[in-house]
Amino acid sequence: MRFDAANPLPPPDLVTLTTDFGLVGSYVGELKGAILSRSRRAVLVDVCHTVDPQDIRQGAWILESAARAFGSGVVHLAVVDPGVGTTRKVVALRPRSRSVWLVGPDNGLLIPALDALGGCAEAWTVEPHAPAIRAGSVDPTFHGRDLMAPAVAHLVEGGPAEALGPRHDPDQLVRADHWEAQFVEHPRPSFRAEIAVIDRFGNLTLNLRAARLVERLGPRYHPRAVRVVLDAPACGGPVEVVGLNRTYGDHAPDALIALTGSSGRLELAVVNGSAARRLGVQVGHPVQVDLVE
Amino acid sequence: MRFDAANPLPPPDLVTLTTDFGLVGSYVGELKGAILSRSRRAVLVDVCHTVDPQDIRQGAWILESAARAFGSGVVHLAVVDPGVGTTRKVVALRPRSRSVWLVGPDNGLLIPALDALGGCAEAWTVEPHAPAIRAGSVDPTFHGRDLMAPAVAHLVEGGPAEALGPRHDPDQLVRADHWEAQFVEHPRPSFRAEIAVIDRFGNLTLNLRAARLVERLGPRYHPRAVRVVLDAPACGGPVEVVGLNRTYGDHAPDALIALTGSSGRLELAVVNGSAARRLGVQVGHPVQVDLVE
Amino acid sequence: MRFDAANPLPPPDLVTLTTDFGLVGSYVGELKGAILSRSRRAVLVDVCHTVDPQDIRQGAWILESAARAFGSGVVHLAVVDPGVGTTRKVVALRPRSRSVWLVGPDNGLLIPALDALGGCAEAWTVEPHAPAIRAGSVDPTFHGRDLMAPAVAHLVEGGPAEALGPRHDPDQLVRADHWEAQFVEHPRPSFRAEIAVIDRFGNLTLNLRAARLVERLGPRYHPRAVRVVLDAPACGGPVEVVGLNRTYGDHAPDALIALTGSSGRLELAVVNGSAARRLGVQVGHPVQVDLVE
Repeated sequence: MRFDAANPLPPPDLVTLTTDFGLVGSYVGELKGAILSRSRRAVLVDVCHTVDPQDIRQGAWILESAARAFGSGVVHLAVVDPGVGTTRKVVALRPRSRSVWLVGPDNGLLIPALDALGGCAEAWTVEPHAPAIRAGSVDPTFHGRDLMAPAVAHLVEGGPAEALGPRHDPDQLVRADHWEAQFVEHPRPSFRAEIAVIDRFGNLTLNLRAARLVERLGPRYHPRAVRVVLDAPACGGPVEVVGLNRTYGDHAPDALIALTGSSGRLELAVVNGSAARRLGVQVGHPVQVDLVE
Repeated sequence: MRFDAANPLPPPDLVTLTTDFGLVGSYVGELKGAILSRSRRAVLVDVCHTVDPQDIRQGAWILESAARAFGSGVVHLAVVDPGVGTTRKVVALRPRSRSVWLVGPDNGLLIPALDALGGCAEAWTVEPHAPAIRAGSVDPTFHGRDLMAPAVAHLVEGGPAEALGPRHDPDQLVRADHWEAQFVEHPRPSFRAEIAVIDRFGNLTLNLRAARLVERLGPRYHPRAVRVVLDAPACGGPVEVVGLNRTYGDHAPDALIALTGSSGRLELAVVNGSAARRLGVQVGHPVQVDLVE
Repeated sequence: MRFDAANPLPPPDLVTLTTDFGLVGSYVGELKGAILSRSRRAVLVDVCHTVDPQDIRQGAWILESAARAFGSGVVHLAVVDPGVGTTRKVVALRPRSRSVWLVGPDNGLLIPALDALGGCAEAWTVEPHAPAIRAGSVDPTFHGRDLMAPAVAHLVEGGPAEALGPRHDPDQLVRADHWEAQFVEHPRPSFRAEIAVIDRFGNLTLNLRAARLVERLGPRYHPRAVRVVLDAPACGGPVEVVGLNRTYGDHAPDALIALTGSSGRLELAVVNGSAARRLGVQVGHPVQVDLVE
């Protein structure tokens, strides 16, 4: 392990893993082996390997929530990579606010976590022929194992980012800002949101951060100033929920409520039940969030 | 890390995780981050994150079996928590027989493991405003991350249990003794059991420990003194198995057998097959276990 | 931890886990506890616990791919064990090419990994009454926990293999060479392969290593010299793919291609789609791979 004289912090040793590799098969094991065979300093932490196949947004948000919870001294490796083997870049990003690295494909996957950690301080591309990578051959179908894992191990060993490949302009990173709900003023001030994640309890997370409601309404913000409206196939028509709650337990069992979830995003939930089943909705279903006063 | 002068043992560093968070999403990652960002001593071990949603008994039994297998120097964190955000307590329990801690909601989840480890030596409630917890804010929907994880990290760092909250009376812990099969004397001595767990091989675990048969029968106990009877929808009527076996391999393929499983509880199994499919039963299905002589 | 004076390498400390235990229940947790309660040196790495129940070949290939990716200093523990409790042996194998151990049932499960690591240097049986195991009782239904886990912990602690049980003749290990595609000369030179693994992206892995094509064709080998033919139920008849590609991204979206996968075996894939769904095939489906010139 090398220490950087200009940087008295030890290199990161925690490595979180967020992928769409699934649980059946050897992909996860190979990824882990590719890291641990290059660095025995690395301490691997499984975050999630069941991101829906090639669903970059879902992976990005899982990574974002996990990255908020972890502190410094971490490399977050994320692989949801429909473009593997094409011209999309692999990048290593250092956010401003913490001593962490984000490593993965340059397809938007790392951006929400990057933004949550204060934006990009520096960015590097990871290239097959770079000094830190060239030890192994690079299989064009498995960049996670052959390109990203060596980059992660290199950072854990305290190697310089320069050895991963050329510097990259953070402004050139691929972003996917359309993932978040759009605000419209007419016919009434509201967010055009959608159901972005459904957890196994049937809670529905929208692509809308509660902070954006507060920004919009300013001092006029009040939990009762929010009205959520959606068409619910299982109810035979539109359903409306007024007001944001603090917790699932605030209401009687079976009540449909809206709340600010632990991710900071709006959620719909049924107390002691499943909102997904109650409403008959799936990921992508449109939801309108009105600001009322 | 602090060491307690009165207690020469080092603090626990293994942390097992048993939850119903599921594999999709960021909950597991956030829980891990919340622990590791507070204590880099912690070595996390995933036990199970796929407890059926809010099935406290299933989680309790998985935790019990895991806790038996682990030795000392462990904090077992379990989160199956339908009452999150309500008035149910969060507790940290120290069993009599081993240097371990059990942390989780006070809803019965920790009790079978506690009993398996010799009963409760001391109990503490974990409170949001306690010195060991107050570092972070507490989200009312995610006590696992915001309340239990800090408590676990505190114990791993060797902090005093007093800093988690007030002492709790072990006799006041919520128990769920109805989870275990009830014994009846009439019309014949038998246990009114049910199918409690079905594993992926289709083996059926009953809510009845083999030790209770031995207790009841005393010196008259013999493997042939047990008769298991249940209604099997897929067989069109009642099915009966006499005698307990040692292993799945004792009989010819396709034989339906009863045995004492690795958990110490009675199991029904089909040799090289699936008892669940053969019998057409699900969790909760009633099973009668007669003591015959 | 004991070090062997004749062997200056430290004992392995990484322990990979590949099982068909599934994710629901306590089996995985008990296995981990059985290792960690005996050796706190062990660093556990989950490879896969969702091998199809009792599918030895699938487990063997997952283990093989993982073992290739890991370096030295590893014990690979694999448990897919339909014969638990019968007379099949438990073995600990040391391959020629690396300082690793393979531990598991003697049913073929360890053989592909063993071959990939250069064949067997030495083999030992693991026996219930051996000095390294006798500490605990052995449950006849759970040899993974009661027999293999203690053996793994013993090796991690640097204990001598002699303490696991008697030496075993590597030539007597159970092999399953019929897992690989058979070559036939007539009516044309071809491999009678089958679909062996389907990953969650719908990519189909055949039981045929690309290296065997090269061996057969020698200097006449060329990517265009390969023709894959199979009956595709979802297409209403036979489908043919000529030539091997380098990566999924080489072709237009929706193209059905054949390529050498990251495992070194032939794969069928649909670019940005699912070959399994396109073709309507399942594991075991026959595929003919012709050598054309």
